[in-house]
Amino acid sequence: MTDVSCYAAYAADAPLKPHQITRRATGAKDVHIDIDFCGVCHTDIHYARNDWGRSNYPIVPGHEIVGTVRAIGSEVHDLRPGQRVAVGCFVGSCQHCASCDADMEQYCLNGFTATYNTPSKDPGGFTYGGYSKSIVVDRHFVLTVPDSLDPAGAAPLLCAGITTYSPLKHWNVKPGMTVGVIGLGGLGHMGIKFSHAMGARTIMITNSAHKAEDAKRLGADEVLLFTDKAAAARYAGQFDFLLNTIPVPHDVTGYMELLKVDGTMCVVGSIGPTSELNSRPLIFGRRSIAGSLVGGIKETQEMLDFCGDHQIVSDIEIIPMQEVNQAYERMQTSDVKYRFVIDIRQSLS
Amino acid sequence: MTDVSCYAAYAADAPLKPHQITRRATGAKDVHIDIDFCGVCHTDIHYARNDWGRSNYPIVPGHEIVGTVRAIGSEVHDLRPGQRVAVGCFVGSCQHCASCDADMEQYCLNGFTATYNTPSKDPGGFTYGGYSKSIVVDRHFVLTVPDSLDPAGAAPLLCAGITTYSPLKHWNVKPGMTVGVIGLGGLGHMGIKFSHAMGARTIMITNSAHKAEDAKRLGADEVLLFTDKAAAARYAGQFDFLLNTIPVPHDVTGYMELLKVDGTMCVVGSIGPTSELNSRPLIFGRRSIAGSLVGGIKETQEMLDFCGDHQIVSDIEIIPMQEVNQAYERMQTSDVKYRFVIDIRQSLS
Repeated sequence: MTDVSCYAAYAADAPLKPHQITRRATGAKDVHIDIDFCGVCHTDIHYARNDWGRSNYPIVPGHEIVGTVRAIGSEVHDLRPGQRVAVGCFVGSCQHCASCDADMEQYCLNGFTATYNTPSKDPGGFTYGGYSKSIVVDRHFVLTVPDSLDPAGAAPLLCAGITTYSPLKHWNVKPGMTVGVIGLGGLGHMGIKFSHAMGARTIMITNSAHKAEDAKRLGADEVLLFTDKAAAARYAGQFDFLLNTIPVPHDVTGYMELLKVDGTMCVVGSIGPTSELNSRPLIFGRRSIAGSLVGGIKETQEMLDFCGDHQIVSDIEIIPMQEVNQAYERMQTSDVKYRFVIDIRQSLS
Repeated sequence: MTDVSCYAAYAADAPLKPHQITRRATGAKDVHIDIDFCGVCHTDIHYARNDWGRSNYPIVPGHEIVGTVRAIGSEVHDLRPGQRVAVGCFVGSCQHCASCDADMEQYCLNGFTATYNTPSKDPGGFTYGGYSKSIVVDRHFVLTVPDSLDPAGAAPLLCAGITTYSPLKHWNVKPGMTVGVIGLGGLGHMGIKFSHAMGARTIMITNSAHKAEDAKRLGADEVLLFTDKAAAARYAGQFDFLLNTIPVPHDVTGYMELLKVDGTMCVVGSIGPTSELNSRPLIFGRRSIAGSLVGGIKETQEMLDFCGDHQIVSDIEIIPMQEVNQAYERMQTSDVKYRFVIDIRQSLS
């Protein structure tokens, strides 16, 4: 077992503070990872502040982890110390249900083990995430990061990246298709990059005119300002697929008329009560509203390799661990382009 | 041109009354049909009463039409006088858009011509439906009815039938799948028959315990009383597909936990604002909510032939034309098993 420096939330209304946790000894199937960078996800804020009423304090957030292998267990033969690796949103699943058998651990029928705040046999009784100097993870849930990628920019791929890549792949986005990415934040900016790299005509859909320039820099072919009703009407029936990354409740069905017959909108940003459902645009066009949750381990590795091939990383602002509370405040006002990444190696001793 | 007896609604708050309309002369591509039976659909009530604010009075409702060919135009070579035919929810479409080219006239990008209440070059300026002695329809939109089917019971197949058959086929219902049919009325009872005939394990989902016996008679393997929370929990994650036939606003997302990963619920009953959308069960299971509208002409013919092969018709109560207003009242309280059909031939001179 190893004592590890980290940052933890202690209560819903308290700032994150320095903390010490104990990591389990490296088991036969485990990988002991020194964490280099950890992205900051909106989910971290929700758990730090107990927005969903199921936070188990102290919480060590962080599930966008890039690090370096320090040690491997006796049954791990395909990794070596010094290798660059990553850990995403979960570190365990039953590995024997229909979902796990289909490489969809994120939909494990027995419930996956999230990277933090989940009951665990680890010291402390809960999983602790990536705002920490190191972590010990079952090899099955450890990804490798292509050497060609900047490790800090790669960190958000483990959540914001796979959350957008997985639905674009599942709904078979490819050249000849028209894809709309709704909302330009941590998720949306990755959605644009992936849709563009997959060869689709990619249209940024936003209510904020000032985001147009950046959307085009990121790869959008066009920008639809949805508050412009005449423009929205011109785009009606144009889209094969809509990726909805808006992180707060909003009128979901208002976008459905943009879809072609048989088109799908996938919601990945807003979790919970989101909208009134008006069935009319669904019925008159056989359209669907779906959801999607991150991606399985195999698909996450595929995504990282795709990023290596296409030189895709997240647009980030690097901060020291000590500034995470200010980062949370700035994220509330979308004051980041487009993801904060904590430099763990340089700022946590 | 032919003067024809019919029943029409004259105003939102008035009963239907005898009326006279003029049918167009039989054009080269037309079929002149003597109507034998016409089913009574909830949509008829909505238009008769102007519930949707777009009724053009006088309205002659009726889009579940079974009749007999009286005459054919010079370019119609595949029908003959005396043959049993049918007309469903629409009598025209552009026939050159992507949807029409794909045999999905119901999603015609230029708007289909509904069987009644749509502007038309016909005498009177609007289409007039099946509560009438005869109708003249473009051959493309005329279906043939297998001789083995009871013509009165076949009438509701043209709307209630295809509305449930089409989504079951589109989502590939087959043996080995578990299908839930939510709601037992005109649509739901057809959904059970079709799902059963397609070989799926078919489960009736209802809030009314007294419907269980009839559901099993119609072909349901099991009945889930959704108000029984323990039973609902046992069925969670069991369903490949849900066909939601509830005709009024209700909590749609409450049913989503019943679906497997990647499962779809298709809404066909409630059109318009229906529910609050909670994205959580969509995201945690990549589930979809879709809609579906009747079916194309080719698929409707396929459905009628499927019914001929499987001896499927609707369970009906036959009424004379003169009792349609009372039928409307009884439909408001679901007092019909499961569809009224007007005997046009015997009651309209």
